[in-house]
Amino acid sequence: MLDLWYSENWSDETKFSIKVKEHIYSEQTPFQKIDFFVSNEYGRFFTLDGLIMITEKDEFSYHEMITHVPMCTNLNIKNVLVIGGGDGGTVRELTRYSSIERIDMVEIDERVVRLSQKFLPFTADKLTDRRVTLYFEDGLKFVKECKDKIYDLILVDSTDPISVGEGLFSKEFYEDCFRILKEDGILVNQHESPYYEKYATEMKKAHDKIKHIFPIAKVYQFHQPTYASGHWLFGFASKKYDPIKDCSTENWDKLGIETKYYNTEIQRACFVLPNYVKKKLEE
Amino acid sequence: MLDLWYSENWSDETKFSIKVKEHIYSEQTPFQKIDFFVSNEYGRFFTLDGLIMITEKDEFSYHEMITHVPMCTNLNIKNVLVIGGGDGGTVRELTRYSSIERIDMVEIDERVVRLSQKFLPFTADKLTDRRVTLYFEDGLKFVKECKDKIYDLILVDSTDPISVGEGLFSKEFYEDCFRILKEDGILVNQHESPYYEKYATEMKKAHDKIKHIFPIAKVYQFHQPTYASGHWLFGFASKKYDPIKDCSTENWDKLGIETKYYNTEIQRACFVLPNYVKKKLEE
Repeated sequence: MLDLWYSENWSDETKFSIKVKEHIYSEQTPFQKIDFFVSNEYGRFFTLDGLIMITEKDEFSYHEMITHVPMCTNLNIKNVLVIGGGDGGTVRELTRYSSIERIDMVEIDERVVRLSQKFLPFTADKLTDRRVTLYFEDGLKFVKECKDKIYDLILVDSTDPISVGEGLFSKEFYEDCFRILKEDGILVNQHESPYYEKYATEMKKAHDKIKHIFPIAKVYQFHQPTYASGHWLFGFASKKYDPIKDCSTENWDKLGIETKYYNTEIQRACFVLPNYVKKKLEE
Repeated sequence: MLDLWYSENWSDETKFSIKVKEHIYSEQTPFQKIDFFVSNEYGRFFTLDGLIMITEKDEFSYHEMITHVPMCTNLNIKNVLVIGGGDGGTVRELTRYSSIERIDMVEIDERVVRLSQKFLPFTADKLTDRRVTLYFEDGLKFVKECKDKIYDLILVDSTDPISVGEGLFSKEFYEDCFRILKEDGILVNQHESPYYEKYATEMKKAHDKIKHIFPIAKVYQFHQPTYASGHWLFGFASKKYDPIKDCSTENWDKLGIETKYYNTEIQRACFVLPNYVKKKLEE
């Protein structure tokens, strides 16, 4: 029997390992190394530069939480920009809103999209929705060159701030996002984790930058067991709407969107952070 | 350089591993195997039968959440029974309330207490509080032989429902807890986790039993990164008080208890569960 394990260092001295049935594909692109695996416990999963991006078992938490929290805050969102998110899971959740008219997705590495379409149909199969336009370019450059305030919502579904993902954690990038969002626009971004020091440092840096640019800047949490510590965060930055005071939970419930993680009670509860996390964010 | 790793199987095909500086102590008692370790990332930690009980890095989440949620629900709690909890962390949190008059702790294995006092002073140092009485006997037997309704609160700080912990997940045990709780008594118990199947099965079984015995039976969640999946639960069972409707958050805040995880916003938010967890509990 093949005894093959995928391991990820959650910290220098912590390892998370998954037994692998088959390493089905590997490719080095100009941007990163992409690997696809099959496992019993997690179904299919894929990694970029050796870090898990999504697993079939728990991708729903991440994709529902990045999408439905801002959508419930403003149900009139029509134009959405997704940066990163090559696996398609974020777009899949967005396409569940018939009110959304346009989804621009900017993914630097076309191979992530094409391979996800091949190996991960459960996340990628809505990338062909007629409202979706795919741009294979650098998200940092895309927002810089975007002239107008055209988006109601920007979702930054990025890797960690290393290699290709680094620019998506810069002050310059957040300022461009602010500039191209409409007067009531919302930015939600992958915001790392409070538990292990290397992630917590990036969490603090991101929050420090965003809170000086957006009038409303909060952080919300959820459980993502295949990410380091299982305690993961998104940033919610907004020009006008507060995710708690302004959310339309009753109207969201009327939409009848079936979710596995998100619900409208979580809309409020996810913004309640443990003291040590609040303290780190305020430092 | 010594390359020593402690590993725990979170599921049959998932491993969580910590680099160990030193394996400082090991003992086989009549009940279980106890091991103490020192690590850089987690400080000191100890295991029972190879499963992590607490680490210095994150024990605060577990001990604060098992204690302050029921205490904030009823600040008049005076007599408390702790079952298990040999490391002393739960008792430490209880001793922070000057209003508590009596803490009976029933730990089946005296060696866990004595060794925790030696190796884990950060959790064990309040076991000598004058209000604490230690009973080294089986918790199941203790509650069965207890004649009167004398407790305001029972905290079941147990291992998983295997070997010594098994009886603490039985219907009989919960019924005895109900019987010895006062008319407004509360039971909080270690309630496993929703993510991996073996834990989720025990979670469901425990909830099914408790909800048929107590008029109020809820489940609340928190982040505990060194437990399987990092997504952990406590059960809140009560004869009279609801943890959300009846909690005294303002009065709790006036006590000035400094916490690293718990706060009175979490008192409500922790009861908001993801849809898939609610569904599993209702099945």
